[in-house]
Amino acid sequence: MGEFELIRNFFAAAPCAQGGVGVALGIGDDCALLDVPFGEQMAISTDTLVAGVHFADPCDPFLLGQRALAVAASDLAAMGATPLAFTLALTLPTVEAGWLEAFARGLNLMAQACDLRLVGGDTTRGPLSLTLTVFGRVPKGLALSRSGARPGDLVCVGAELGNAAGALPLVLNQRSTTPDIAQPLLAHYWSPTPQLALGQALRGKATSALDISDGLLADCGHIARASKVGLQIDNHRLPMSLALQTFLGKADAQRAALSGGDDYVLAFTLPGAELPALLAAGWTIYVVGRVIEGLGVYLLDEAGQDITPDQRGYQHFHA
Amino acid sequence: MGEFELIRNFFAAAPCAQGGVGVALGIGDDCALLDVPFGEQMAISTDTLVAGVHFADPCDPFLLGQRALAVAASDLAAMGATPLAFTLALTLPTVEAGWLEAFARGLNLMAQACDLRLVGGDTTRGPLSLTLTVFGRVPKGLALSRSGARPGDLVCVGAELGNAAGALPLVLNQRSTTPDIAQPLLAHYWSPTPQLALGQALRGKATSALDISDGLLADCGHIARASKVGLQIDNHRLPMSLALQTFLGKADAQRAALSGGDDYVLAFTLPGAELPALLAAGWTIYVVGRVIEGLGVYLLDEAGQDITPDQRGYQHFHA
Repeated sequence: MGEFELIRNFFAAAPCAQGGVGVALGIGDDCALLDVPFGEQMAISTDTLVAGVHFADPCDPFLLGQRALAVAASDLAAMGATPLAFTLALTLPTVEAGWLEAFARGLNLMAQACDLRLVGGDTTRGPLSLTLTVFGRVPKGLALSRSGARPGDLVCVGAELGNAAGALPLVLNQRSTTPDIAQPLLAHYWSPTPQLALGQALRGKATSALDISDGLLADCGHIARASKVGLQIDNHRLPMSLALQTFLGKADAQRAALSGGDDYVLAFTLPGAELPALLAAGWTIYVVGRVIEGLGVYLLDEAGQDITPDQRGYQHFHA
Repeated sequence: MGEFELIRNFFAAAPCAQGGVGVALGIGDDCALLDVPFGEQMAISTDTLVAGVHFADPCDPFLLGQRALAVAASDLAAMGATPLAFTLALTLPTVEAGWLEAFARGLNLMAQACDLRLVGGDTTRGPLSLTLTVFGRVPKGLALSRSGARPGDLVCVGAELGNAAGALPLVLNQRSTTPDIAQPLLAHYWSPTPQLALGQALRGKATSALDISDGLLADCGHIARASKVGLQIDNHRLPMSLALQTFLGKADAQRAALSGGDDYVLAFTLPGAELPALLAAGWTIYVVGRVIEGLGVYLLDEAGQDITPDQRGYQHFHA
């Protein structure tokens, strides 16, 4: 038995690969088989992370496993889908037992947190990279797409912004700071929390949603384009952690909250009438702007003046 | 807009990305949405191909696109699944329009041949590799697994064996031959035909199935292990093309048919009573052996003598 077949057996024995609700057949055959309840649809998303491009090489394999699955699962949250399963395509230059064990531990931990089961994949030799495909289920017609935002809706986010971007200089060892500031920022970077429960709570309520991966302004541009509307963002209403503001100062913290990547926080549009019941139910929701007629994303200051760097809005922001 | 976003738009505009039956939402949102009819299950398989490991680098991008999808779709055939959709995770060192155009053309051609629609994926910068995840649907309880073979069943294959292995010295430019021999062999290597229709015809009839990717003997070992049975293969009944026998000579052709990789032909076990109706319906089926009590794969000569190289059979064959 070759070492790559051993790895397949290693993953097949992982706690998250032991099947569960919706998994009719897991690892070990030509295909996995998933059950989708009557009246529901299957939501699917694929993410690739390449060493030296999407993460430093070498990096901590436990943190990599944890983060890679969180990033992928965040797309299920953005769709309002209930997590079901995932496949892992792992390409490795060499087989190191310690590396694999730590990677699988991180993957397992996030799989349990997200209620996702490993049902298949591929293990190959080559430059280090991973492709994760995640599967969820969502009642027909209730998936949260990017295309339903309507003028008058509120623009909302589900958590503080900019923490992961703030952590980047720490991840890259370009700066250091005290643990009370570094720890919460690094936690957001290495172990983002996919907002799966919030996504499901927004089914039938939010008119559009996505998860912020390229920064609030750039990703709001996707909603603007798909929904053919304008989005106004209030610069003074961005939720930011104390750690981020202390570490970067207020102006740079705002820039991180607006344009930093890797947040994996939900951004969504919501008719105002839906807000009170969601807040009463205990959901954390920050209102950061409103949907208007037009096309593009506009940044406003406290006086309502347009301070968008590019006059056409951020619709061409994503470089 | 960055060049990798342009690539995403390029693939979104491809003919095979224009949706179709079962695709509720295609490329462009956080997730794709697929419909699975009531009473059916979703079959899922993931394959990674790495440049320099699974294919030569550089290689013809048209042939790569065509072959990569065929290899992935073959797993749906092995499960008896009806093709539905696929995702493509493509990692590229540089963006070359000509390369992409040819790759997409090959991908499209095979997608049309297999009735598969591109519904999502990821495009990233890094060492060249692709991960394809294919989706099919199959009536509940009718998927062809590896675990149902029973003593007394016939061991069958759905096409001639060894052609792709025979083509390998031509692919690697280690040997050359006349076009009448080279062409059919190279066609099997570069454009394997996933036996999707045969797989669906075997639902409820075959007791186990898989697609041969590592050679008949090695893959029969998977059925033997999963079904806890023995498989006898008759060395003199292996279907082989004239081109293969002319190119390699009979003994090496038999070796290619038994142990060569990349066939992507179905191997399956079938109760004898099912055979006449399938043959009458026009299916090409070669009987190459039988299932017995025991465990492992055994090779027999014309006189019924065991000529298995390893006395324990081929159950530990896969290196």
